[in-house]
Amino acid sequence: MNTLQRLIGQPVGHIDTPALVIDLDAMDRNLATMAKFARTHKVKLRPHAKMHKSAELARLQIKSGAVGVCVQKTSEAEALVAGGVYDIFISNEVVAPLKLARVAALTRLAQQHGGRIAICVDSVEGVNRLAHVMNESRAATGVATTIDVLIEINVGQNRCGMEPGEPAVALALEIRKHPPLNFVGLQAYHGRAQHLRTVAERRAAIAAAVKAASDTRQRIEAQGVAVGLITGAGTGTCALEAASGVYGELQAGSYLFMDADYGANERDAADPRFEHALFVKTQVMSAHAGHVVCDAGHKSHAIDSGLPQVHAFSERSRLEYANGGDEHGILRPAAGSSRLPSLGSMLWLIPGHCDPTVNLHDHLIGVRGGLLKGVVERIIKVDGRGALT
Amino acid sequence: MNTLQRLIGQPVGHIDTPALVIDLDAMDRNLATMAKFARTHKVKLRPHAKMHKSAELARLQIKSGAVGVCVQKTSEAEALVAGGVYDIFISNEVVAPLKLARVAALTRLAQQHGGRIAICVDSVEGVNRLAHVMNESRAATGVATTIDVLIEINVGQNRCGMEPGEPAVALALEIRKHPPLNFVGLQAYHGRAQHLRTVAERRAAIAAAVKAASDTRQRIEAQGVAVGLITGAGTGTCALEAASGVYGELQAGSYLFMDADYGANERDAADPRFEHALFVKTQVMSAHAGHVVCDAGHKSHAIDSGLPQVHAFSERSRLEYANGGDEHGILRPAAGSSRLPSLGSMLWLIPGHCDPTVNLHDHLIGVRGGLLKGVVERIIKVDGRGALT
Repeated sequence: MNTLQRLIGQPVGHIDTPALVIDLDAMDRNLATMAKFARTHKVKLRPHAKMHKSAELARLQIKSGAVGVCVQKTSEAEALVAGGVYDIFISNEVVAPLKLARVAALTRLAQQHGGRIAICVDSVEGVNRLAHVMNESRAATGVATTIDVLIEINVGQNRCGMEPGEPAVALALEIRKHPPLNFVGLQAYHGRAQHLRTVAERRAAIAAAVKAASDTRQRIEAQGVAVGLITGAGTGTCALEAASGVYGELQAGSYLFMDADYGANERDAADPRFEHALFVKTQVMSAHAGHVVCDAGHKSHAIDSGLPQVHAFSERSRLEYANGGDEHGILRPAAGSSRLPSLGSMLWLIPGHCDPTVNLHDHLIGVRGGLLKGVVERIIKVDGRGALT
Repeated sequence: MNTLQRLIGQPVGHIDTPALVIDLDAMDRNLATMAKFARTHKVKLRPHAKMHKSAELARLQIKSGAVGVCVQKTSEAEALVAGGVYDIFISNEVVAPLKLARVAALTRLAQQHGGRIAICVDSVEGVNRLAHVMNESRAATGVATTIDVLIEINVGQNRCGMEPGEPAVALALEIRKHPPLNFVGLQAYHGRAQHLRTVAERRAAIAAAVKAASDTRQRIEAQGVAVGLITGAGTGTCALEAASGVYGELQAGSYLFMDADYGANERDAADPRFEHALFVKTQVMSAHAGHVVCDAGHKSHAIDSGLPQVHAFSERSRLEYANGGDEHGILRPAAGSSRLPSLGSMLWLIPGHCDPTVNLHDHLIGVRGGLLKGVVERIIKVDGRGALT
């Protein structure tokens, strides 16, 4: 960290490789684009912090208009609360007693700071376990804390979540039996839909999700229970959820950095435009007649959504990245006319998937003024790196 | 870390999930098997510490007969030297001036502790850059340190490395011009061969590597330059390099933990038998009619060599793991007869590839006495986690 702090004010050329670098100008434009998009659609933004796991970036998003953030893990919430972020939605189920005790403690802490913790459930047992620790916490501390609870419904991801309709209605009534649980609404997130390539596929998937969520809300409200919020959406589909009139909060997270993989989606006219703002800086460490090797392999960037793209500053510098293992990337000219870079040349990779890429790094290096002539402005800690529990 | 230290002496059931757990009994058997294998074949073992990145495990391997360890990155070497490991081969090229200065400093430090640093080169420019920093270091400190240098030759990986034969001969003569560089031999590692599935393919690949290495040695020695060492081999092919009479050191690393992916290789009669000793402990956090969801996704384990396998304690508990994204795994019965585990059930995943899986975790939890009834014996730090530069 001290070595990294010494980089502040230095030109990008001084950043050792491989390193994860944010183009702060591009990130700021993405922040502004998303804030304007949410305002225009009169929908709230609660970006997913599982992407960056950084309290500094979460605070920046909130300063730019977000109502709070989402996380997936209790330990991510702990890392953000420790970094001064107090309005957090754990958009996932937590059933382990040890973790639930930590959720209860976080709920008290967030409330002390004027914030709140919300969490998902998708089973009666999950509701009972959560109510149990909240009651225990109340008894032990004498403080009457409540936690906001959302029912996750399965709108096509086929992972977690109750089936929409009657099963969700029964669970809502179950939640209402427990005073420390404050039923606030439904999570209807369709993760798979984010990367459906055609506009038509994404529209059909989100139309079905909207219908399932809206129908479930009606059925729950017919029982006299208000459904204050429906939340979901990612960067790939947020224009659809925003236009639905049904979703009250958007959970998009990748918009801040933009994955290479999202670039493969066919664009809808209504989709907001975001720029790649996250790069792995790498350099050529072995040069050969037909290829060169760079020092960034899949310990530097995640490859679950495909290999990284090599950022091209000109048509003649276009390169293709092939998997060279944990520590190497193999680069070949993307077209006959491209030149191979020489030993020591700096290159910039656009990760296929930002979330697990950031999770490989302890710090993000923020650069102002572009990748060629920029200067390191700040070092951003990935507070929740490796926060798995 | 403090929370983890409190686990020592506790039953495995108390380990929160997901977590990376070593079956210490299985690991000890793997250590003994490999030590005996190397003794039998009269070949030295220098295991690759890029796999575990842990000084404690490197010291354990050395105590079990290894002559030292390999690493891929300067920062990995720094992490191990800081942890008391002083005989390290950086089995990779380093060309960045900032990194080379660190290599020179490490070389001095290792020599002060009676150890040594070795490194690969594959270009004249690389040799000149290395000689330059070693000369600078000598001038600045007044200490005459030397670094052991190996020429990496390309024996089929088609990544780094000089072509075998004359190009390598010329480079050996170049190295000899520089007093601080001590030419010790050749690296002839065939990474791709490790995962060739049939015995015949692996035999053919390593036979070609042995021939290329042996021929290159003859040509260099014909110039009056001794080639003291040929090094290479991984867990998938080490029986072939060991039997060749040409390789003096084996670099196998995965044998300590064993990847799920190695299990897919057709076994050769001469291959030593290793057991899976590394597991991701996970639990069911959402249960449904046809599937359950566990709390370990690809932020808990690497999927570059395939998805993890679910360890089965009995035929009826066999499950198949499907990708559920960064934080989830989706589990379905592997056969019609299998039962789905209930909410909160503990499960154990065998990672497809140990190296990048370990790199996701700050600590390994060592368990003695098996996965069902074992007790946490020690917490092992992954000193080089995220050491990329």
